[in-house]
Amino acid sequence: MSQNRNYNVAIVGATGAVGEKIREILERKSFPIGELKLLSSKRSAGKKIKFKNEEITVEEATPESFKGIDIALFSAGGSISKALAPEAVKHGAIVIDNTSAFRMGEGIPLVVPEVNCDDLKIHDGIIANPNCSTIQMVAALKPLKEAFGLSRVIVSTYQAVSGAGNDAVDELKDQTQQYLDGKELTAELLPVSGDEKHYPIAFNALPQIDKFQENGYTFEEMKMINETKKILHDDSIQVAATCVRLPFVSSHAESVYVELGKDGLSVADVQNVLKDADGVILEDDPTTQTYPTPLSAMDKDEVFVGRVRKDLDEEKGFHLWIVSDNLIKGAALNTVQIAESLIEQNIIK
Amino acid sequence: MSQNRNYNVAIVGATGAVGEKIREILERKSFPIGELKLLSSKRSAGKKIKFKNEEITVEEATPESFKGIDIALFSAGGSISKALAPEAVKHGAIVIDNTSAFRMGEGIPLVVPEVNCDDLKIHDGIIANPNCSTIQMVAALKPLKEAFGLSRVIVSTYQAVSGAGNDAVDELKDQTQQYLDGKELTAELLPVSGDEKHYPIAFNALPQIDKFQENGYTFEEMKMINETKKILHDDSIQVAATCVRLPFVSSHAESVYVELGKDGLSVADVQNVLKDADGVILEDDPTTQTYPTPLSAMDKDEVFVGRVRKDLDEEKGFHLWIVSDNLIKGAALNTVQIAESLIEQNIIK
Repeated sequence: MSQNRNYNVAIVGATGAVGEKIREILERKSFPIGELKLLSSKRSAGKKIKFKNEEITVEEATPESFKGIDIALFSAGGSISKALAPEAVKHGAIVIDNTSAFRMGEGIPLVVPEVNCDDLKIHDGIIANPNCSTIQMVAALKPLKEAFGLSRVIVSTYQAVSGAGNDAVDELKDQTQQYLDGKELTAELLPVSGDEKHYPIAFNALPQIDKFQENGYTFEEMKMINETKKILHDDSIQVAATCVRLPFVSSHAESVYVELGKDGLSVADVQNVLKDADGVILEDDPTTQTYPTPLSAMDKDEVFVGRVRKDLDEEKGFHLWIVSDNLIKGAALNTVQIAESLIEQNIIK
Repeated sequence: MSQNRNYNVAIVGATGAVGEKIREILERKSFPIGELKLLSSKRSAGKKIKFKNEEITVEEATPESFKGIDIALFSAGGSISKALAPEAVKHGAIVIDNTSAFRMGEGIPLVVPEVNCDDLKIHDGIIANPNCSTIQMVAALKPLKEAFGLSRVIVSTYQAVSGAGNDAVDELKDQTQQYLDGKELTAELLPVSGDEKHYPIAFNALPQIDKFQENGYTFEEMKMINETKKILHDDSIQVAATCVRLPFVSSHAESVYVELGKDGLSVADVQNVLKDADGVILEDDPTTQTYPTPLSAMDKDEVFVGRVRKDLDEEKGFHLWIVSDNLIKGAALNTVQIAESLIEQNIIK
């Protein structure tokens, strides 16, 4: 990075699934941190967490927590972000928010650094980190759009339980053991903790992520549709999504159909663009059964693409299989990369 | 059924996952059986299996096994069907084959009774039962095609492990326990028992079902594409498929995008057709989180459809979520229904 100073960083939701990954990534990347504040709900305050060689006591997040903070990374749910992100901005911090609270707001940059880091240049203190399933998809689609144009996207997702938090992962593991033991499965959380009905996720597939909207789509599906258009700066792209929760812990996979803007493209043409794309790794060779899977992508930083096929009927149509760790590139890593980009571009001084 | 006589029935592959379901369904439906022959490989011969109040000894399947048999139900892999189905026909039996050996053959009826039972009228002794993932899809798409026309299908599947046989289910369960115990996962069978590499299925998703073809598609994907066109008698329908194996035991789910042949259709128009469709149950109400899942469809005869949505951009586009038990309607039940239809239509005399 171009700067030599250190930055005071606060993590709101520091004890959650994403907060934990953010701590790991800040440490691994030697992010230039002055003071690190770990903030949480009252319930988790007082916990001691090791960061580098220090032990940091988790504090309850309040409006006053952000005094002297340069960068505040929010990942504690939309209502916390709505309440506290403006307070952080008032104290002079720049907020990078991992929830859906501000993403579609006018004037709020929604950023995947490899895709649209220029959007960081104009902001009012709050930067939004896109939805996990959107991030990995646009990371692969942007270079294809640049190279060939992009008119249409139809995606069906295969999403990991960790996207619903640590409690959901515990529920999956408990139900899995119940299933193996021939017991009844107790479902109290998924598909959506705040929703009325709960269904088992173990040995199952739930075609509901987040709440249903009035148009019959889930909020997760609408996030993918709207965020993709915003990040790619193109409302004319047709985007359709079906989002499904599945019984694995980490990494989302996506079966993506795209229509590109050019005739006569071959599988190799598409593969070559993906091979050179920033943050993307092509893992695609049917002759050696090479393709990414949720387990193979786990704990890795990149977005993996395989199963590149040309549609058998549609001249401009291609099919892709896109996999990435939903807590890393889908959340924590992208958040930290936004902070890095802000520094690199001299947007945080 | 219209006939009063009984039929001598042979099940080839009687001890396998599908064979077991065929026995259950023949018994439950009081299929008019005279003699029942249970045939298998040498390895399973000698086993004793209860059927109704009888105990039947499993015999090794040989060309001579089919003497006096009226209906032979094959479900023991393509090579067995290729070797023995013509022998059964020579002995005067009508074969209903559950493998891919004959499906795309010229003059071989490929039948889902609710969809194209008329195709049974002309045959040379062998009737093919379609692929599991095809059956449930065409059962839902045929009534929509009838009502509105159908020009395009893009499907991403969520397929159960039992489609790969009982050994694959054991592998899933073993790996699942290994995962919960923090042990390394041993993969020896999936994604394809005869292929070179094996990957864990527990807490994972494998974008390979059956072997890769030269065009980069898997054989499972090509089955869905080709069989759908054959069953619907329409080579002009654009069909694309991505097939994915997932860590659940039973029922395939499918995220299906369709383009119908009529403008101005509403979600209710599509739902109403599905509501009245033979063998299909509409489970679709976002306001009460009502949709089918693999667990909810397990052990049931019907094809369940939910998540009916109109595409937000494409006037004729709709999205569906189709779920059915892959061993029942996807295999054993459809096989028995073909036999029933042959009798009802006086094709077997």
